[in-house]
Amino acid sequence: MTRLANPDELEKRLRAIGAERYHNHHAFHKLLHGGALNKGQIQAWALNRYYYQSRIPIKDAAILARMSERELRRVWRQRILDHDGDDKHEGGIERWLRLAVGVGLDRDDVIALKGVLPATIFVVDAYVNFVRERSLLEAVASSLTELFSPTIISERVAGMRKHYPFIAEEALVYFEHRLSEAPRDVDFALAYVKREADTPEKQAATAQALYFKCDVLWAQLDALHHAYVEPAHVPPGAFVP
Amino acid sequence: MTRLANPDELEKRLRAIGAERYHNHHAFHKLLHGGALNKGQIQAWALNRYYYQSRIPIKDAAILARMSERELRRVWRQRILDHDGDDKHEGGIERWLRLAVGVGLDRDDVIALKGVLPATIFVVDAYVNFVRERSLLEAVASSLTELFSPTIISERVAGMRKHYPFIAEEALVYFEHRLSEAPRDVDFALAYVKREADTPEKQAATAQALYFKCDVLWAQLDALHHAYVEPAHVPPGAFVP
Repeated sequence: MTRLANPDELEKRLRAIGAERYHNHHAFHKLLHGGALNKGQIQAWALNRYYYQSRIPIKDAAILARMSERELRRVWRQRILDHDGDDKHEGGIERWLRLAVGVGLDRDDVIALKGVLPATIFVVDAYVNFVRERSLLEAVASSLTELFSPTIISERVAGMRKHYPFIAEEALVYFEHRLSEAPRDVDFALAYVKREADTPEKQAATAQALYFKCDVLWAQLDALHHAYVEPAHVPPGAFVP
Repeated sequence: MTRLANPDELEKRLRAIGAERYHNHHAFHKLLHGGALNKGQIQAWALNRYYYQSRIPIKDAAILARMSERELRRVWRQRILDHDGDDKHEGGIERWLRLAVGVGLDRDDVIALKGVLPATIFVVDAYVNFVRERSLLEAVASSLTELFSPTIISERVAGMRKHYPFIAEEALVYFEHRLSEAPRDVDFALAYVKREADTPEKQAATAQALYFKCDVLWAQLDALHHAYVEPAHVPPGAFVP
């Protein structure tokens, strides 16, 4: 990776990483959207994924805090609004809580992170630390997994509607919103990365950031799979379905 | 946990956490010392555990950097010397490399962390960040898993000698050294914690720090187990035996 790619080649390279490494290829995702999970396993997924959701605005605030250009901050702050909501819009975290309650979890227990896998916390915190410690370019590049999220969200929602009648339609509203928010967010981030990654080294760092983020998503599903798919190995102290 | 325990009660409480949560209870440890692993699985264990070993002096330097008392630093710095070695003593990291080579890994690949599980990196980095971000008392308390290490080390070495003839005696020298170093280190840390945890809140934080560290050790074995024990799920990019 010593040659400078043009911006479109770079985009192609980044998309190829997702095609190979995004967590839509993970066994747990296949079980989820294929209807092979039971209610307890879906609860474990919703509970653990809540921790990820709850850190997203913190991750985005850390990125915002590193942006010296007002124009960039104006755009990026929308992610925080979308997730935290306001008087008129409940926001993504609240919508995820609705999903969690919709699959039978107790709202307060979820907010208190009761029974969340330690591995989930380690992985998600690694993501927050990554955007604090690496370059702004790498931090922005790590968000590019959203290039690949519309497909996985569509599969997930279709699979949930088809296979899990106990999940109310109302609980799936989180995903609907993400289908419009994610493409808007990622268009900006991709344009930023294509513009700023103007040396072979920066382009390599951009690719590494995307590999890292794919690992973050993958490792979360690995932890769920290990703990909750037979032969299940729930670690001490974690949620027992 | 609102009552103030006396120091010996606190020690008892901390020892009880280890009795319940230390990773000698983990399925992967049982497979390892029981002779049920093959060479590739032992290689995966040695490779991933190397990353943990390699961060220990960094973790201890972070603790050292937070100690305002020279007397404390004088004692704690010995941990760094033990691990990094000097002209006369190779140190723990070098000894772990000998183990890794002894089970058939390439020394340079191990040092380059080639194929280390992303989960291992996330978990171990969480430990380093913990000692940076929490109170010094919590940082020191998180080292108290060494209270429980002599037993696991003895089991491990006995099991390795008995079941894995391909591991040369020379490769096991790491563990011999830890059998004398760990008790000395932990005596000091335990006395420090018993002295400094002088409110119910600090005692609770101390216990939480030890739970956290048990989770750090457990999650490393979970990741190995998920990736390398049948049905194996090696994540993309990781070491394939």
